[in-house]
Parts: sequence; C-alpha cells; structure tokens
Amino acid sequence: MNSDKKVESITVLEAANFLLKNDNFYILTHVNPDGDAMGSGFGLCRALRAVGKKANVLCSDPFPKRYSYLYNGYEPQKFVPQTIVSVDLADTNLFGKALSVYADFVDLAIDHHISNTGYAAKTLLNGKAAAACEVLFEVFTEGKFPIDLQTAECLYTGISTDTGCFRFENTTPRCHEIVAKLMGYGIPYAKINRELFEIKSRARLTVEQHVINSMEMYLDDKCAVIAVTSDMIAETGLAPEEFEGLASIPMQVEGVEVGVTIKEKEPGKFKVSMRSAESVNVSELCAKLGGGGHIRAAGCTVEGNLSQVKLKILSVIAPALGFDLWLS
Amino acid sequence: MNSDKKVESITVLEAANFLLKNDNFYILTHVNPDGDAMGSGFGLCRALRAVGKKANVLCSDPFPKRYSYLYNGYEPQKFVPQTIVSVDLADTNLFGKALSVYADFVDLAIDHHISNTGYAAKTLLNGKAAAACEVLFEVFTEGKFPIDLQTAECLYTGISTDTGCFRFENTTPRCHEIVAKLMGYGIPYAKINRELFEIKSRARLTVEQHVINSMEMYLDDKCAVIAVTSDMIAETGLAPEEFEGLASIPMQVEGVEVGVTIKEKEPGKFKVSMRSAESVNVSELCAKLGGGGHIRAAGCTVEGNLSQVKLKILSVIAPALGFDLWLS
Repeated sequence: MNSDKKVESITVLEAANFLLKNDNFYILTHVNPDGDAMGSGFGLCRALRAVGKKANVLCSDPFPKRYSYLYNGYEPQKFVPQTIVSVDLADTNLFGKALSVYADFVDLAIDHHISNTGYAAKTLLNGKAAAACEVLFEVFTEGKFPIDLQTAECLYTGISTDTGCFRFENTTPRCHEIVAKLMGYGIPYAKINRELFEIKSRARLTVEQHVINSMEMYLDDKCAVIAVTSDMIAETGLAPEEFEGLASIPMQVEGVEVGVTIKEKEPGKFKVSMRSAESVNVSELCAKLGGGGHIRAAGCTVEGNLSQVKLKILSVIAPALGFDLWLS
Repeated sequence: MNSDKKVESITVLEAANFLLKNDNFYILTHVNPDGDAMGSGFGLCRALRAVGKKANVLCSDPFPKRYSYLYNGYEPQKFVPQTIVSVDLADTNLFGKALSVYADFVDLAIDHHISNTGYAAKTLLNGKAAAACEVLFEVFTEGKFPIDLQTAECLYTGISTDTGCFRFENTTPRCHEIVAKLMGYGIPYAKINRELFEIKSRARLTVEQHVINSMEMYLDDKCAVIAVTSDMIAETGLAPEEFEGLASIPMQVEGVEVGVTIKEKEPGKFKVSMRSAESVNVSELCAKLGGGGHIRAAGCTVEGNLSQVKLKILSVIAPALGFDLWLS
C-alpha cells in the first residue's frame, strides 16, 4: 500500500504488469454500485484469481441482487491486503463510509471518468471509454489474463449498463468491437439485457404510472418535471427504493429537452436529477445550484418546499432553453 | 425481370456482382415497413445510385415519418424497371396490394428470414443475420459499394431496430462488428436510438398507462394479457395508430414468460400478438390458432367475443407453461 501522493498516469500495459507483479488485492468500487462498478469489480477479481492471485471485492454498500449473476459463487478470501486497486471510482467521496479508510492508500485506479481526481498513486484513465469494464478488457488483453464466461458477463454488463445498452452518446466503436468478442464466450446477453433493461416489478410499474400521471410540463413543453415526495411514497405503500432511478422517464416525452426528477430526501431538502437530450449542458445548470455531473446527466440538492425548489430549478433551466426573461 | 420459377441460392459475392451487372432497379420492401425494411430499402437504393445505377424504393404502404432521416432528399427517378430486387421480404403475402403485381417477377431477394418462401429467381438468404441490413452490409463490402453517412444510418437503423438495440437473442457478434464500422461514418446514433427507443408522444404515454392499468395476470402470473377494444380506443379519444406496437409491454412484468396483446380489428375478430421470454415457443402456440411467426414473437387472428378469445388463447398457453389440466 502506498500513501505517497505523487500522481502517475500509466498505460494499459503498465497496469497489466502492475497487476501481474503484485498480489493480495483489495478491489474497491463505488457506493451505490451500478453495473459497471459490479462488473469491473468482480471482473478484475476473477481475472486476478485466475492467474493465482488472492483478491476480494469491497464496497461500502451491499452488492445489489440484480447483479447477483456476476458474483454467484464468489467467496471472500482471507489474506492481509498488500495492493489496493479501485475500479470505476472517480473520487474519494464515492468510497463510502466503510472504504473511506483506504482513500489515501490506493495503489492503482482503473477508471473512465474524466473527472477522476487522481487520488491513487497510479492511475489508468481512459476518459473516452464508455465504462471501466471497457478499460479493463484492454488490460486483460494486454496482460493475457484468462477470460471465462462469468468474467465476460462482468465486462459485458459494465459496458451494456453504462451505455444504456449501446444507446447513449458515450457508446464507442470500441464498445461494439469488445462486445463482439465477449459474445464469443457464450454470455446469455438476451437474458441479461431483458433483466437489466426490460423487466419491472409490478410495484415499479405502479410507481412509473404514478409519476407519469403527475408529470408537469414547463417552458413550451421543453421541460418535463416529475416530483416524488415522502407523502406520495407513503400513499402508494411501496418501498422508497422503488422510487429510485426515475430520471429517464421525463426524457421519454416527445419534444422534451430537459428532464427533471425531484425527490424529497428529508423535509425541506430535495435531490434533483437533470437530464438533457441534445443541446443543454445540465452539468453547468446543476453547478449553479451547487451540484455537478456530466453534460447530459447531472444532479444537485436544493432546499425549500416543493414549489420553491421547482421555481429555483426552472429559473436556472429557462435561460438555457432560450427563455431569457423568465423569472428574471 | 424474370418469371422463371427455378429458385437459386446465391452467395454474397454473386449478389454483389448481380447488382453491379444490372440496372434500373425497383427495390421492394414489405408492408407496414419497420426500421429494417426502410433501412435495407433506402440503403440499397443509395448504394446503387452511388455507382451510377437508377433505383427506386417501392412499398405498398407510405414510408413512415419516424424513419424520414433515412429518405431525406430521396426523389423517385423516372425509368423503365429492368431489375426487381426485394429486401427483408420473406413472403409474397407481405408485398401488399400495390406491389403484388411484382410477386412473380422478383430477380433477387436479399433476406434474413429463415421462413423466406423462395419466391425470387435468386435468393441471398442469411438466416443467422439479425437484419436484412446486416446481409446488405456484407454485399456492399464484397461489391465495394461506397457507403456514405446516410447509407450508414440506413444500415445502423435496420440492425438496431431488428435487435431491439442489441438486446434481443438474434443479436450476433457480427452485428456489433458491423456497427463498430458504421459508427466510423459519424452517424448520430444517440439521437437515432433516442428517437427510436425512448421518445413517446404524450398520447402514447396515455395509451401505455391505460393498457398497463388494465393488464391481467394469469397462470400463476406467468402470463400477462393486455386487451385493446374499439370501445377503449374510442374512450381515450386517441388515434387507433397510437395503440400499435404494444406487444412488448406485457413482457416488462417481472416473472412473465408469455405476454399476450389482443387488439380488436373488427367486431368479433381480434389480432393476437404473443411474446415469450425464454422457454415457450409462441410460434407453435400461434400455429395452433391458425397463425405463426418466430419462436419468441408470433401472432394470429382469433374470432369470438373478448372473453372467448382470451379463453382460447389461455387454453393454448396453459399446457406450454406446465398447466396440463387447465381448461382441458
């Protein structure tokens, strides 16, 4: 483990050699792990174990059940950690509580976020890659790590989820080339994609109905807003988790350029997710409200009652949609 | 034009040479044209025109507006047709009224449906290809036809729509390889996919709400049924076209193996679409009701009132889901 603060960018080959030369790995991934976090974490773990290394995957949050096919059969090993590698982890504030102790001791970060803060001693960063799993595939290829079916499923899942199944702007020709190769391992991609992108619980369908019914249109219908309050959640009698990940819904509406999802976190405090279709940089808009993110997907936290929060948000969005005098 | 009935299977290279040796093409595609019909039709037309040939695209139905980016700038040319080529057209019963006159005179069929009836003098059939556009890409490559941005958009759209954006079982490694190459032409894939797979009119959102609300679950919740009657359509005040293409909705529900969509065509006559997730061959089930199709997507027409129609359908589905004594 390395607490030395010099930041060093390394190449794919150097990263592969680093992995091959070291042992006893803790692989860290981010809180609230998504398909790429899980895929890159367990993909790397399997590849390291396949060449005789000891490796565990660590996350401050529990591994989500929806990705259980990526860690079926996984058992943590007992060893004293010597090498700390992070995957898909842009910033130490995404380590979460349990892993924060490792923040100063990461030897190698393998990432695809241009916003990576350089917290690790060595960083393999490809900001053009759609997923950490895309970067990892190159590492496995250079280092001749064996890839088996479950490792291929890990990498496929990371690329597929981070690109919205090859729909989003971040999809690269290289994503498709890699996936063509991964399919050769016999991954049940149709089943995986169906479970990741299509299937919804009945509760979830009810929630979506609810928010679509209550969706509000602003600014010549170029902005769609859905709001989820604690009262609304209580009314449905459903678990609050069912109300996660609704941000893509306002974007489904024809003509919408900016989609906003507002969710009450605690009384007087709302988590805001913003998405844009083509022209608006929502990262800039959220920055004005104290948040940040990507050009097409960003977020912030806004305080006030629901009406006040909506007004604050709309007053920032309006100029970006050409409504110069709105609320000014 | 050739009315000789000998059926001849030809190779990709032979098809390319046939196209290069002939001229004055009518390119036929199927009624109710989807992304692959439009993509292969206009893709082939552009490629032929690019090598100095005369070519028009013909369809018994109007070209759908949602695919207008594939035929922007297209103008039919005036010439006496000498060569008739069909694309994505499995059977002469899909020619539609206006094109039925050509059924006996197709010189070359380029297709990917294993069910192709061999109506053409020469047939280039790749039953493993996900889309006619996949077959066409190989033809363009072998024949060194120039591919420009709009042609690439045509081929991408065909592959993307026929594979549900690379989600379905029919997706092949070759699809991904081809798409990696097509992306090199600078196609606005994110915009295309958003328009094809995400955006819905407000009317459409209302329709989906309506059918999800009225969805019925049968056979231990393994079968979801949605029914659209003429009365229901009239009640919403929306255009009947808004009620097309709902067949994927029942498949979204967790645990559903067979999804059924029933739509009233005329009093006492219902169009039935059946989808399956993993184990049931719905083509066989629909055949029992006088219809047919693919293993995971098939259809039929059933007569009776709505209750009778549901019973007929469920009595066929039940045994396939292991409910041996149900209704027997």
